[in-house]
Parts: sequence; structure tokens; C-alpha cells
Amino acid sequence: MTGEASRTSEARRDAVFGRWVVFSPARSRRPTDLKSHAPANPSPAASPGAGGAPKPSCPFCHGRELECAPEIFRVPATPEPDAASASPWRIRVIENLYPALRRDAEPPAPEEDGEGEAAPGERAVVGFGFHDVVIETPRHDVRLWDLDAAGVGDVLLAYARRVRQLMEHPAVKYVQVFKNHGASAGASMAHSHSQMLGTPFVPPTVTTRLNCMKEIYERLGRCSLCEFQSKDILVSETQNFSAIVPFAASYPFEIWIIPRQHSSYFHEIDKDMALDLGSLLRTMLAKLSKQLNDPPFNFMVHSAPFGASSSCLPYTHWFLQIVPQLSVIGGFEIGSGCYINPVFPEDAAKILRELDC
Amino acid sequence: MTGEASRTSEARRDAVFGRWVVFSPARSRRPTDLKSHAPANPSPAASPGAGGAPKPSCPFCHGRELECAPEIFRVPATPEPDAASASPWRIRVIENLYPALRRDAEPPAPEEDGEGEAAPGERAVVGFGFHDVVIETPRHDVRLWDLDAAGVGDVLLAYARRVRQLMEHPAVKYVQVFKNHGASAGASMAHSHSQMLGTPFVPPTVTTRLNCMKEIYERLGRCSLCEFQSKDILVSETQNFSAIVPFAASYPFEIWIIPRQHSSYFHEIDKDMALDLGSLLRTMLAKLSKQLNDPPFNFMVHSAPFGASSSCLPYTHWFLQIVPQLSVIGGFEIGSGCYINPVFPEDAAKILRELDC
Ligand SMILES: Nc1ncnc2c1ncn2[C@@H]1O[C@H](COP(=O)(O)OP(=O)(O)O[C@H]2O[C@H](CO)[C@@H](O)[C@H](O)[C@H]2O)[C@@H](O)[C@H]1O
Ligand SMILES: Nc1ncnc2c1ncn2[C@@H]1O[C@H](COP(=O)(O)OP(=O)(O)O[C@H]2O[C@H](CO)[C@@H](O)[C@H](O)[C@H]2O)[C@@H](O)[C@H]1O
Repeated sequence: MTGEASRTSEARRDAVFGRWVVFSPARSRRPTDLKSHAPANPSPAASPGAGGAPKPSCPFCHGRELECAPEIFRVPATPEPDAASASPWRIRVIENLYPALRRDAEPPAPEEDGEGEAAPGERAVVGFGFHDVVIETPRHDVRLWDLDAAGVGDVLLAYARRVRQLMEHPAVKYVQVFKNHGASAGASMAHSHSQMLGTPFVPPTVTTRLNCMKEIYERLGRCSLCEFQSKDILVSETQNFSAIVPFAASYPFEIWIIPRQHSSYFHEIDKDMALDLGSLLRTMLAKLSKQLNDPPFNFMVHSAPFGASSSCLPYTHWFLQIVPQLSVIGGFEIGSGCYINPVFPEDAAKILRELDC
Repeated sequence: MTGEASRTSEARRDAVFGRWVVFSPARSRRPTDLKSHAPANPSPAASPGAGGAPKPSCPFCHGRELECAPEIFRVPATPEPDAASASPWRIRVIENLYPALRRDAEPPAPEEDGEGEAAPGERAVVGFGFHDVVIETPRHDVRLWDLDAAGVGDVLLAYARRVRQLMEHPAVKYVQVFKNHGASAGASMAHSHSQMLGTPFVPPTVTTRLNCMKEIYERLGRCSLCEFQSKDILVSETQNFSAIVPFAASYPFEIWIIPRQHSSYFHEIDKDMALDLGSLLRTMLAKLSKQLNDPPFNFMVHSAPFGASSSCLPYTHWFLQIVPQLSVIGGFEIGSGCYINPVFPEDAAKILRELDC
């Protein structure tokens, strides 16, 4: 990472979450006398089950569909919708067997002033919601970016389709689509998968994001994410999407994939867009894997909440955030919500841009 | 954890940060085929350096003061202020040798509309600020809760004194006091210490907290933290402080220590209060250590920002948050800002309350 050590610290505030991030290359030189974070999980390709054989204990492998919670749909669709169907599949969307929120619970009544508050401002509601898993491949040894662009595109289309289904439920206010890869990124299952949670409330990060983007829109008349992005932070571009290391990235080598045309809802992507995004996402994951030696990572889709009024659509712009988990955060981040990032976005972008994948 | 498995999911919103947390005991039963998070660092008491001998490579040990960045003050004070002084000490407050923010940088100019914005809403300033380390004991084998109540109280007084010093600087808007213990809580040094960062901006979590407490104060006329706390979540009480597992705890076995009298600023604690808090903090850390087998943890002080107007003091109430790090968060938490907690606060409080320490 040439040149980084000579740079001095800088604090940057981003225009989407309004977060301050401290860039401090010198921090990466600090010593440690504690064992550091475990690297990613052993690459599935190198673990038992390689060669396409199902791993004996993995319920996400093909042939073990009966050990999973009920299926919602599969790709390609089965002639007759039967969860136990042995028809071949490329993607399965299933219920989470250990759901954080339960689809069979009573949806909460609309909130009223002070009503149902345990103490001033506190509120408790039954844990209603939807928690689904997307199995991205039947094979235990295949990672998302081992699929071709169309394969990744199909996974994105499966997300979008399921989000549209959940949107139909009047009590679902938001769907958080996310992926955990590797134990240090929280994953408990190695088989390539992602998840989504449909919540009966708008999550705090979504509210913060909308408020921040609104403030900028009202002050400057522009969507924070439509603006021309400095070439320095650009990693790659396709017809419809830009991949950048954001100006105030919270994490080293964080990447955002942003639609170039203003668009509020992820779930409205069509087949062509999904193919284009699939190709870019695939490349970005391959670049991170190559540069950072198969790091644990998360990715998250940030979209507009369902009930969003039409007045807020001009400033909400969906994007996909990829976060490699290279270190553990500490009390400063938990307490203040600020992050310390030892790698300047321009440096990370340059490295990723020049990497052949 | 009797009874927990029979409970069903619940979502709760807290009255301080306005965060939604999903309580889902069933989640703790989910299987894993990935190696889970490493437990805390080996207890310092069991590692080389036990018996009070300095660990050969640890710059925080007594006798190695010259390997540290400059000292700010020590307790007890040295007759003549000389960083290299060999006088015995119990606590040292020193500069961080690898600071995230630099005290020698130019403080940022006050922000003006759109001024200095890299792109709409984005802002970059030089990394001015203060980053200090508090060495809590000269001995490598002593943990904070191995000190007696007065010893922990002295550490708290050292925090408060240093915060008051930083408050004098016109460009410092907030000081985040925090402690990392164990590698999985982010610590890079095993020797018992804490840190503080004086920032030239009000961190996002502080803004969110003040906004949330303000909204409740305006709606209900009450400070969120002065209210009578349900006995079910109380762990312990002293003359001046209550220790609770908060109603909407983000993390399993999270503890908040709250002054019973309304008070906005941590740094105003006096000697008696510090002794009382020292005793309660010590007990809480000992309980967590005993119940959870010396877990990695963070603690953070949440106080009012320096410039806070007098109109906001009625609803800001400082407290100390202790967070054991028992699992890794994933994409849902990073994306949405909501947490999933498998342990109900009432259950955690009961266990901790009944534990003898
Ligand atoms: N037979 C089966 N059928 C259907 N579903 C099955 C199943 N067996 C297991 N599952 C589910 O599959 C999911 C696998 O998810 P991940 O590996 O991405 O992480 P997990 O949700 O465990 O937790 C991570 O992500 C969450 C959300 O970010 C964090 O709360 C948490 O701390 C972090 O470890 C689990 O949620 C599990 O319940
Ligand atoms: N000789 C010396 N003199 C003075 N200071 C010295 C020193 N040698 C080391 N230090 C400093 O001592 C500190 C020890 O701090 P911790 O162990 O609490 O965690 P650290 O700050 O490394 O990072 C954790 O906490 C931060 C803040 O929460 C997170 O950003 C990060 O990811 C997480 O790992 C380091 O900041 C280091 O710079």
C-alpha cells in the first residue's frame, strides 16, 4: 500500500449515513501482544465436500432438502410446488429454521402515542416478521463469486422477488437483505447463502440514512448518490452501476455498488440490470478475495422502506455495501458510532482497480 | 438459563438510543459448521509475567515507562513532572503512540454551509484530536476488577480529570472514554488499560442519543434514565448508582450503570461518587467474568457533549455501558442497526443478581 504511511490523519463525514470516520494510516503500525482475529473460514473449496459431493452434515446441500425449514420457492421453479421435490435446483429460498422474527406471530398494532410503552419511550411488541435464507447454490464447494454473471444475477433476482412478496404484507415495513461469509463475519453456515429479515418497523440505520440524505437534498438540491463520484475512488463501472470505495468508508476496502441512474428500490431491478449487477458484484468479490486472501465479509442491500412517501423518493437511492471484516471493532466504535479506518479510500480503490480479476 | 427456551420472540425499542432489538431465545439453538469466535484472551494472570514481574515486551509495565509515548499525568503525582520519572505509580495517563487523531494537527475551522464539502454533504477535515491511554495498574497480571473499590475509583477519577483537561480545548466537542478487554473485543494490548478520544465533532451515537432522549422528554416530560427501573432488570444498587440489564439490551448480558440522581456529565463525579461507582463496576466485572468465563468485553462512558445547551441538560443523563462480546455480529446488524439478542434482559439480570461476587 504505497504511500499510505506518509499520509497524515483525516476525519471525513459521509453524505449517506452522516457518519464521521477517522482515517489513520499510522494505526496499522501499532503492535499487538494479543492473538489477532482469526482469518476467514477455510475456503469451502478446500474442505470436505469438495468436488461437488454434499457435505454429510450440511442441510443446504442438494439431496438434503428435507432437513431444511419449508421452501418458499426454488430456481428453476418445480413443475408442482412441493418442498420435498427432488427436481434439480440452482437456488432455493427457504424459511430460516431458527428465525429471529416469526411469521406466525401476531403483527403489532400500529403505534400510538405512549401506548404500550413499558417505561417512557420503551416499547415491546411480539416478535413478528419474516426471516428467510437464500441458498445460492446446491454445491457445498461453490462460493457466490464462483458462479458466472448470470448465476449471480439469478441470486439477485431471487432476493428481489422475495422482497416483492414480503412487501405485500401490510405489517412489513422493511426487508434487510444481507450475506455473511466466514466465521469472523458472523456466519454459522459455510455453504454459500444469504438471508433477509422482513421487520415490522423501519430499522434505525434506515431512518438515519433517509434523514441524512434528506438534509443534503433540501440544502443542496441533490441526491447524495447521483453526484459525479471522484475518479480516485472508482474501482469499476458497468453500463448501469459504479463500484466505488466510498469517500468516508467505515471499513478498510469497503465497496459500494451504486446504480448510475437514480433509483430508490432495489426490488425493482429487472433481468438486464440484475445480470449487469451480477457481473460487477462477482468481480468485486473476486477482487477482495484475491487481494485480501479470502477475507470474511458481509454485504448488505440498502433500499427505501416500503411506506416511503413519494416526497422522499428523490433523495433515496439504493446501493449494495460490501464490507470485508479485517479487524475487530472496539469500544470507541461501539460507543461513538465513529469508525477508525487505517486505509484511505483512494488507496484501497487504486489497489482494487489495478487488480486483474 | 431456565425458562428462556420456552419464551417466544419479542422486539423492543429502547428509550435512550431509540434502537430496536429482537429477542429470540430460539436463535441460540442454531447449529454451526464454522469454528466459532475465539474466547477471551488467556487471562493475563495465567500468562507470562504472572507474579507481578513485568512482561518482557509490554511497554505498559512498570519499569518500561520510557518505551511509552509521553505521560500526561500519573497517580500519585510525581514531585517533579518528568515522564521518565521512576517514582512508583498506580495509574498513568499517557499519549497513545499510534493516535487515530493528532493533537499537533490544525483544529478544523467551524463548519459552514456546504463549505469544504468534497461532494454534496461530504466533508473532510484534518485529523485533529486527542487520543490517550490510561494504564490502570503497573502490573501485567492485574485486571481492573482485581483492584479494590478505591483502586477502581481512582481509575474513574483519572478518566474524569483527563476529560476536564480536554474540555478546556475549544475545538474538542466530545470525549469518548472506553475500555477494550480481550482480543475479540478489539484489544491489541493485554495489560489492563483504557482509552479516550477527544474529537472535534459530536459523534453520531451521541447525536442519536440526545435526539431520542429529547423526543421522549418533550412528549412525556421525563428523562428516560431517571424513571423507576423495573425490579426485574435490576442487578444491584448502591447509594448513588443502579446496575441494570437494560430493557432493550443489544448484547446478551449487557449492563448499564446509571447514576440514581439526574446528572448530565460523567466528568463531574466527585471522590465519593467515584468510590461508590468503583465498587459497583468492580462487582459487575467480577460477575461477568465468573458467569461468562472471563469474556472479552468493552465498556463505554456515555456523557453529554461539551457544548450542550442548558435546555438539553434535563434529558441527558450519563451512564456507563458494559458489553460482553460473546458472538460476532453479522450483516443484519451492520445493515440495519438492529441487534438480535438471544437472552432476555430479565433472564440475564436474574442470573447476575443471584451470582455471589
Ligand atoms: N436446516 C436449516 N434450515 C433452515 N435454516 C437453517 C437451517 N440450519 C441453519 N439454518 C439457518 O441458517 C442461517 C445461517 O446464517 P449465517 O451463517 O449467515 O449466520 P447466522 O444467522 O447464524 O448469524 C449471524 O448473522 C446474524 C444476523 O446478522 C447475527 O445476529 C449473528 O450474530 C451472526 O452470527 C442461520 O440463521 C440458521 O438459523
Ligand atoms: N508504547 C506505547 N505507548 C503508548 N501507546 C501505545 C504503546 N503501544 C501501543 N499503544 C497503544 O495502546 C493502545 C491499546 O489499545 P487497545 O488494546 O484497547 O486497542 P486498540 O486501540 O489497539 O484497537 C481497538 O480499539 C480501537 C478503538 O475502539 C479500534 O479501532 C480497533 O479496531 C480495536 O482493535 C493502542 O491504541 C496502541 O496504539
